[in-house]
Amino acid sequence: MTLLDTTIERILPLDAAAIAAARARQDTLTKPQGSLGRLEELSAQLAGIQGQAIPEIRDKAIVTMAADHGVTAEGTSAYPQEVTAQMVLNFLGGGAGINVIAGQVGARVVVVDIGVVGPIEDGSGRLLSRKVMSGTRNMAAGPAMTMEEAVAAIETGIEIIAAEAEKGLDIVGTGDMGIGNTTASSAICSVMTGRPAAEVTGRGTGVDDGQLKHKITIIEKALAVNSPTPDRPLEVLAKVGGLEIGGLAGVMLGAAARRLPVVIDGFISGAAALIAAAMAPNLSGYLIAAHVSVEAGHRVLLDHLGLKPLLDLDLRLGEGTGAALGIFLSETSARILAEMATFGEAGVSEKSEEAD
Amino acid sequence: MTLLDTTIERILPLDAAAIAAARARQDTLTKPQGSLGRLEELSAQLAGIQGQAIPEIRDKAIVTMAADHGVTAEGTSAYPQEVTAQMVLNFLGGGAGINVIAGQVGARVVVVDIGVVGPIEDGSGRLLSRKVMSGTRNMAAGPAMTMEEAVAAIETGIEIIAAEAEKGLDIVGTGDMGIGNTTASSAICSVMTGRPAAEVTGRGTGVDDGQLKHKITIIEKALAVNSPTPDRPLEVLAKVGGLEIGGLAGVMLGAAARRLPVVIDGFISGAAALIAAAMAPNLSGYLIAAHVSVEAGHRVLLDHLGLKPLLDLDLRLGEGTGAALGIFLSETSARILAEMATFGEAGVSEKSEEAD
Repeated sequence: MTLLDTTIERILPLDAAAIAAARARQDTLTKPQGSLGRLEELSAQLAGIQGQAIPEIRDKAIVTMAADHGVTAEGTSAYPQEVTAQMVLNFLGGGAGINVIAGQVGARVVVVDIGVVGPIEDGSGRLLSRKVMSGTRNMAAGPAMTMEEAVAAIETGIEIIAAEAEKGLDIVGTGDMGIGNTTASSAICSVMTGRPAAEVTGRGTGVDDGQLKHKITIIEKALAVNSPTPDRPLEVLAKVGGLEIGGLAGVMLGAAARRLPVVIDGFISGAAALIAAAMAPNLSGYLIAAHVSVEAGHRVLLDHLGLKPLLDLDLRLGEGTGAALGIFLSETSARILAEMATFGEAGVSEKSEEAD
Repeated sequence: MTLLDTTIERILPLDAAAIAAARARQDTLTKPQGSLGRLEELSAQLAGIQGQAIPEIRDKAIVTMAADHGVTAEGTSAYPQEVTAQMVLNFLGGGAGINVIAGQVGARVVVVDIGVVGPIEDGSGRLLSRKVMSGTRNMAAGPAMTMEEAVAAIETGIEIIAAEAEKGLDIVGTGDMGIGNTTASSAICSVMTGRPAAEVTGRGTGVDDGQLKHKITIIEKALAVNSPTPDRPLEVLAKVGGLEIGGLAGVMLGAAARRLPVVIDGFISGAAALIAAAMAPNLSGYLIAAHVSVEAGHRVLLDHLGLKPLLDLDLRLGEGTGAALGIFLSETSARILAEMATFGEAGVSEKSEEAD
């Protein structure tokens, strides 16, 4: 069996006993039952994932995968391709949005070159150079990757989680950088959810009306040329996906196989989740949707995955910025369960049977 | 002039030049313009409040005001009145929800007894004992407070902000504890927004259908007995308000007078904001709505104040728990503006004039 196969096999259902124990404990804490709303649900999910009644969130990492996309040759993006490599250097230098927010929440940022075009001169020594290939091929003219390349991208994500777990890891966030990757993600979203491309394609980094129309045409062309079908998620990834999308699908699978919660970022991470969840039916229980972005297909794919976003702040930066905020809220929910006093401990009267 | 009058007079419009400078800087940072959505707007608001292009959020405090409500004699609450004092001790002991979340965001919690019934045996030495009176009177039978008591409650809040500012303060969160205070807040909300009591009254800590109907009847009775009108906000506070609600109105006014942003918590803080904003037309620019709760009137009052909540997590605990999360996001937005690299600094190419 391949690493991918064994990883999928290791993803088990959530621990129902731990979920029940977490819920029972929530109801003994000094607050009206249910008054912390979605934070209470989230703490129970974390308990079920980690398999312990009181989940712990100490070591936090955001894996930000960068790659280029051959489809940018069709002029689908507002920024030139070299920005992918430039932004990787910005991540390594600490000047990007993800560095700031990850720093605030105390998460380390793991920056991975999984397929950026051209060499990256990393002076920091912190870049994980795991280039599967130098950008995908143009999906409007044929498959973006071979099946072997797609598997290699996913397994890279699995291996990175294995290495990070060695350093200590309680929760993972996903992040992306890749000029052209909203085009690939819209193509994936269209195939996997069955919605027309026009419904799930947005402005990415900021194309105008005419460019958006062109982007949709190119996605339709890529779908016609490649004929991907939702029952073959690995083929969907190979035909119309991206290297960072495959890598992030691997991060999700690898984390779930180790009972680690995964906070997914925006639309690109969501596309990766569509692929990964179709390959591993138990996966979605391990996923926490950080936010819903302004990108058109994002809500569609979250609904398809059965995930309810924690935040709705009109974010559309990617990099893992939304995931970092979701990690913060996950930690909040776990701390509530671990640190709040019970009614008994605090000597607080419980709810009257009848209002007095 | 009274302290209240001079405070209101000191609340100036936001600094338009600082807002413009913050927005201009956002557009030079290494991200597509506007891609951090509401965090970008929030950073500009903070700039306008603090009067500097790059706002700073270091010292953070949540002022949690506790008081009792005479109207609980009517049986409007799910918990007995002694829970107010018991929860104050829980705040001081560090076991409540607000302690956990404030700890995570690095905010100090300032616990104030502004009108709890009975003495509080504070072993911690951290309680601010500023009892204006020992709980309000029953508003269903007459005014909850005299006008003098209402002014004293507001001025207590102003004085507490003055004292906290001396210790270092960049942002304030509001929090409340008081069995019966959703009843008073619904009454205030009904008067100030012109909506019927039934539309703005919810289950508070968790009353059932029959108790909710009774709660609405009692609020209608309090409004009929006292005849408060929205053009006299101080009178509204005195007639159907609460001591912690007055105190929090004072916190908001005192903070705005010092150009400090105020993150308001849930429904009770919102009721305080309705009173404070009606007294000081420039106030609302200084307010940041942390979240929208499940309490029926909360969205109504936020709309009335022109505030858009940052979070929607079905919270209804109060204490300042939502405000603590809002402080976290405010800090995120300020850090983005201060710490991210510009395109020039990072050597990242800007958006193409046309897609290439």
